[in-house]
Amino acid sequence: MKYKAFHKLSYGLYIIASGYDGKKAGYIANTAFQVTSHPPQIAISCHKSNNTLDIILKSKVFSISILKKEVDTSLIGEFGFMSSSRLDKFRNVEYKTFATGAPIVLESSVAWFDCRVVNQFDVGSHILIIGEVVDSAMVTDEEPLTYAYYREKFKMLSPRNSPTYIEREKLAGEDEEGLPPAGKTEGGEKESEPGSDAKYSTICGYTYDPEVGDPSAGIPPGTPFEDLPDDYKCPVCSVDKGYFRKS
Amino acid sequence: MKYKAFHKLSYGLYIIASGYDGKKAGYIANTAFQVTSHPPQIAISCHKSNNTLDIILKSKVFSISILKKEVDTSLIGEFGFMSSSRLDKFRNVEYKTFATGAPIVLESSVAWFDCRVVNQFDVGSHILIIGEVVDSAMVTDEEPLTYAYYREKFKMLSPRNSPTYIEREKLAGEDEEGLPPAGKTEGGEKESEPGSDAKYSTICGYTYDPEVGDPSAGIPPGTPFEDLPDDYKCPVCSVDKGYFRKS
Repeated sequence: MKYKAFHKLSYGLYIIASGYDGKKAGYIANTAFQVTSHPPQIAISCHKSNNTLDIILKSKVFSISILKKEVDTSLIGEFGFMSSSRLDKFRNVEYKTFATGAPIVLESSVAWFDCRVVNQFDVGSHILIIGEVVDSAMVTDEEPLTYAYYREKFKMLSPRNSPTYIEREKLAGEDEEGLPPAGKTEGGEKESEPGSDAKYSTICGYTYDPEVGDPSAGIPPGTPFEDLPDDYKCPVCSVDKGYFRKS
Repeated sequence: MKYKAFHKLSYGLYIIASGYDGKKAGYIANTAFQVTSHPPQIAISCHKSNNTLDIILKSKVFSISILKKEVDTSLIGEFGFMSSSRLDKFRNVEYKTFATGAPIVLESSVAWFDCRVVNQFDVGSHILIIGEVVDSAMVTDEEPLTYAYYREKFKMLSPRNSPTYIEREKLAGEDEEGLPPAGKTEGGEKESEPGSDAKYSTICGYTYDPEVGDPSAGIPPGTPFEDLPDDYKCPVCSVDKGYFRKS
C-alpha cells in the first residue's frame, strides 16, 4: 500500500454549515461531490464525532460554500481546527440564510449550494450525507481553492477526523523507488518536502519550514524555529510555539 | 439555481475498471473520493445503466486509476464515451491485475487503487459504491489531471450518464450579472467561451471552435468548421463531422 497515492485524488475545499434551534455549526471539508444530476444531489462525508454532523442530522439541511484560492487562512483555522461546540465560528464571518435556513458562508467563497438531506449512509467512522440541492449561486468568478494547492502551500496534512487523514509516520516511511524525478504540483510550483529542521503544529498540521520562513508573519526564509519571536502563532490554527513538534 | 456553481466543485479524472467471468469493463469517472481513513475506503458514483456497474456488482471488486494531466485523449474517448458491452476497451491498453483480480489501467496513470466492494447505496439514477482499498501504488510522480483543466482544454461537458451532467441549454441561459470580470481557471489559462460558429460532438461534447482550431489534428486557428477535411474526426470520441451540431 502506498499512502502517497491517496494524495493524487483531486478535491476542493469547502465550508459545510448547518443550523438548528438557534445554534450554528460548520467545518472545513475536502469531500463534496455531485452523485446524481437529476435531481442534483451532492454527497459529503462527515466524521461521527463532528459537532456539525449532529446539527445536520437534526435540522436535515446544510450548505456548502466553495472556498476561493486566495482564501483567508484564519477561516480555515477556525472552521477546520476548532469545534463549533465551544466557539461561535460565525461571529466575524459574512453569511446569509436562504431557502433551507442553513447558514451559508459567503466570505472567501466562490459559489454555494443550499441542500436538504435526503439520505444518510453509515460507512464506519463517517456518515455519508446525501443532500438535494434546492438552490445554488455564484459569489465571484475567482478560481476555487484545490486541496492539492492548499496542501502544497501550507505543507499540511488532513486533520485527524478527515476522511483523507494519513498518519505522518506512514507517509514518511514511503520512499520513491522506481519513480521518475518529482514533477510539478497542480499550482505549477515545484513540489518540495520540508527540511529536517521543520516543525509542525500538532493541532492543525501546518509545517513551519525554516528554509521558507512564514511570509504571512513577516518571518524571512532562513529563520530557525528557535529564533521565532516568543509571541509567534501558527498562521492557520493560532496556537503558540509550544504546540509545535519536530517533523 | 445557478448551474455554473456545480462547475466550481473540484474533481480529478479516473478510470474505474472491473472484471468478471473473463469479461473486462471500465469507464471514465470524475467522482472518486475517500470517505474514511481507517480503513481506507473510497466511494464512486456509477450510473445504473453503466455496463461496468453490472460487472462491479457481480465481481465485488474494482480498480481506480488516477489519470495524468498529459493523458492520451484516445483513452478518454474509448473509456469515457463508448460502452464496454460492445468494445474490448483493454485491447490496446497497458493494464495489470493484482490482489483483487480487477484489471488496473497503468497507461496515462499517476497512481492506482485496488478495491473490494464493501457497501452499495442507491441514490436514484446512480449507485454509490464503497470500496475498501486493499492495495495502492504510484505509477509516476507526474501531475494528475483535474476535471477543471480537462473541461477548459476541451471545452467539454460531462456525458449524459455522469453524476455531473448539466444540459447545455441550462448553462447557456445563465448570465453573469453581478459578478466581477471572469478570472483565470485552475490551469492558469483564461476561461473563454467558444464563439457562435463553434460546433460540438453530440457523442462526447467536445467543442470545435474555429477560433482555436484543433492543434491535435494540425488544424490551424481560424479554420471554419465547413473547411475541415472530409475525413476529420472528433479528437475525443472519433466520430466524423456529421455528428457535430451548432453550440
